[in-house]
Amino acid sequence: MREVRLVSRPVGMPTAENFELVEVDLPEPTDGQVLVRNHFMSVDPYMRGRMNDVKSYVPPFELGKAMEGGAVGEVVASANPALAVGDLVLHNLGWRDVALVPDKGARRIEAIEGVSLSAYLGVLGMPGLTAYVGLLDIAEFKPGDAVFVSGAAGAVGSVVGQIAKARGASRVIGSAGTASKVAWLRGIGFDAAFDYHEGPVRARLKEAAPDGIDVYFDNVGGEHLEAAISALRPYGRVAMCGAISAYNATDAPPGPNNLSLAVGKRLTLRGYIVSDHNRRMKDYLPEMSTWLAEGKVQWQETVVDGLENATEAFQGLLTGQNTGKMVVKL
Amino acid sequence: MREVRLVSRPVGMPTAENFELVEVDLPEPTDGQVLVRNHFMSVDPYMRGRMNDVKSYVPPFELGKAMEGGAVGEVVASANPALAVGDLVLHNLGWRDVALVPDKGARRIEAIEGVSLSAYLGVLGMPGLTAYVGLLDIAEFKPGDAVFVSGAAGAVGSVVGQIAKARGASRVIGSAGTASKVAWLRGIGFDAAFDYHEGPVRARLKEAAPDGIDVYFDNVGGEHLEAAISALRPYGRVAMCGAISAYNATDAPPGPNNLSLAVGKRLTLRGYIVSDHNRRMKDYLPEMSTWLAEGKVQWQETVVDGLENATEAFQGLLTGQNTGKMVVKL
Repeated sequence: MREVRLVSRPVGMPTAENFELVEVDLPEPTDGQVLVRNHFMSVDPYMRGRMNDVKSYVPPFELGKAMEGGAVGEVVASANPALAVGDLVLHNLGWRDVALVPDKGARRIEAIEGVSLSAYLGVLGMPGLTAYVGLLDIAEFKPGDAVFVSGAAGAVGSVVGQIAKARGASRVIGSAGTASKVAWLRGIGFDAAFDYHEGPVRARLKEAAPDGIDVYFDNVGGEHLEAAISALRPYGRVAMCGAISAYNATDAPPGPNNLSLAVGKRLTLRGYIVSDHNRRMKDYLPEMSTWLAEGKVQWQETVVDGLENATEAFQGLLTGQNTGKMVVKL
Repeated sequence: MREVRLVSRPVGMPTAENFELVEVDLPEPTDGQVLVRNHFMSVDPYMRGRMNDVKSYVPPFELGKAMEGGAVGEVVASANPALAVGDLVLHNLGWRDVALVPDKGARRIEAIEGVSLSAYLGVLGMPGLTAYVGLLDIAEFKPGDAVFVSGAAGAVGSVVGQIAKARGASRVIGSAGTASKVAWLRGIGFDAAFDYHEGPVRARLKEAAPDGIDVYFDNVGGEHLEAAISALRPYGRVAMCGAISAYNATDAPPGPNNLSLAVGKRLTLRGYIVSDHNRRMKDYLPEMSTWLAEGKVQWQETVVDGLENATEAFQGLLTGQNTGKMVVKL
């Protein structure tokens, strides 16, 4: 079996030299472990943070060891009475062809007719729950709100916008980085979408939401956050989910120069981490399943083939090569 | 009677040329109005914002008209059956010796033995309520929290720190702009205080709160807010009350370059305006009265004499010439 290890910490954008693809012996499961043949692994923006040696809400990836991340696969050997060979499972030991998953580290999932298993890494998994919790619990979305989401063509952003529409938003605006993503967003029900490369975000947002916004779902930070603060109406809320514009920055990027508007506008900006909110999965999954069945939510994936291309997939994610969820097929 | 009018809009720090002291005829009250001889008027940082011609939570002061603001005084003529000559009242028509206050524009107050009437402009008034609401409702202070407050020697900041202590804070840290203010803060029970002119705020805060903080009460913005974001522990909260460092800025000041830390730390930053929370006065006044009687809260005033010096008092407020509440005795 093969695994991708982090061998040096990236400075700025990760490069091929930061990673190594290594062959290792296939282990035997013992004491509740299961051996899982991974079918798909996830690449997600938060992984960039774990490549830095800084204290954060999760410890950094260790140098010389395989990285981790969401994956789905099939049990091929089991020392766990609760999991049988052939069971499909979701677990956190991606970045390898075959994973030795510890007791309680794998959750059994059901194959759904016509739906790729990889959905459990996206719309039915962590990114979908991130969208749901961020919009409803963190930004306290209410029907009638106008919602702006950045990184709107990504795994999280595309779900945010569609949940907002399904729950009665007055207007949903998305930003993305290419014309084809913008076209896709319009196709899946966004009321307005723009390519942030085409002029200042503040001006584009003003055109797209002339009456302002009530909620900003921030995947990007930087100029987007500043533009949103200007556009927010009184009592507006910001769910701070990520700041992909800064993940590869080597110097501290400038902060929003209009943050003091939050006083007079009574804004709330709130950061969150989805793993604090896993209890909401039981509410999310039935609701999302209904929306999917009704066609109210559409999703898309960008699939890269093979573990040997996983680091390129990750780099592509950081530069916006994906539309919808970026996954690696193993 | 005399009144202070705004005759031109300040660019940067207000100057004498922006204001005019004008004599006007003494009017007669009719239709529920009362004529009030003002004893004290308030100067407050928020007034700087009203001098700009921008849309905000309150309309800007009008050019050529008397400014407004908190004042306390004595009814000298009344066309209002609810208020008699000799009654003491709190109202919003400061910046004049004598005010013609409309029906329902004045609230009767009680003289308290040994307490200056001006307390109703400070610890028993809007600034005190600002401290209470910001700390307890907006920043959701809990006993055991470590609290940092900037502008800590001001009317609001000094009350924030003392309420935090009275309600069981584990540690209260204040910043101020002179050595004598810092000494005063230590004297009234702050666990640590520093002069922000003495080195970077981030380093001074780190010394004063080596284990970090849970709540930041922001009166200042800018470098203070950035330092606080760095020092905040997971699930920390920021009450955004004001940003005096930027009130006279002619260019947009830089924003905090570490705001994206709010994601991983799950921070909440929330702006507020005290007038949204006036219903809390009924909770605040009894509690503060008890603290004052028990000596748990001390307060101080900087008193400037005469309406002719009111604009200087306001300028002094913006440059930190006050310790405690800045008021003008009329």
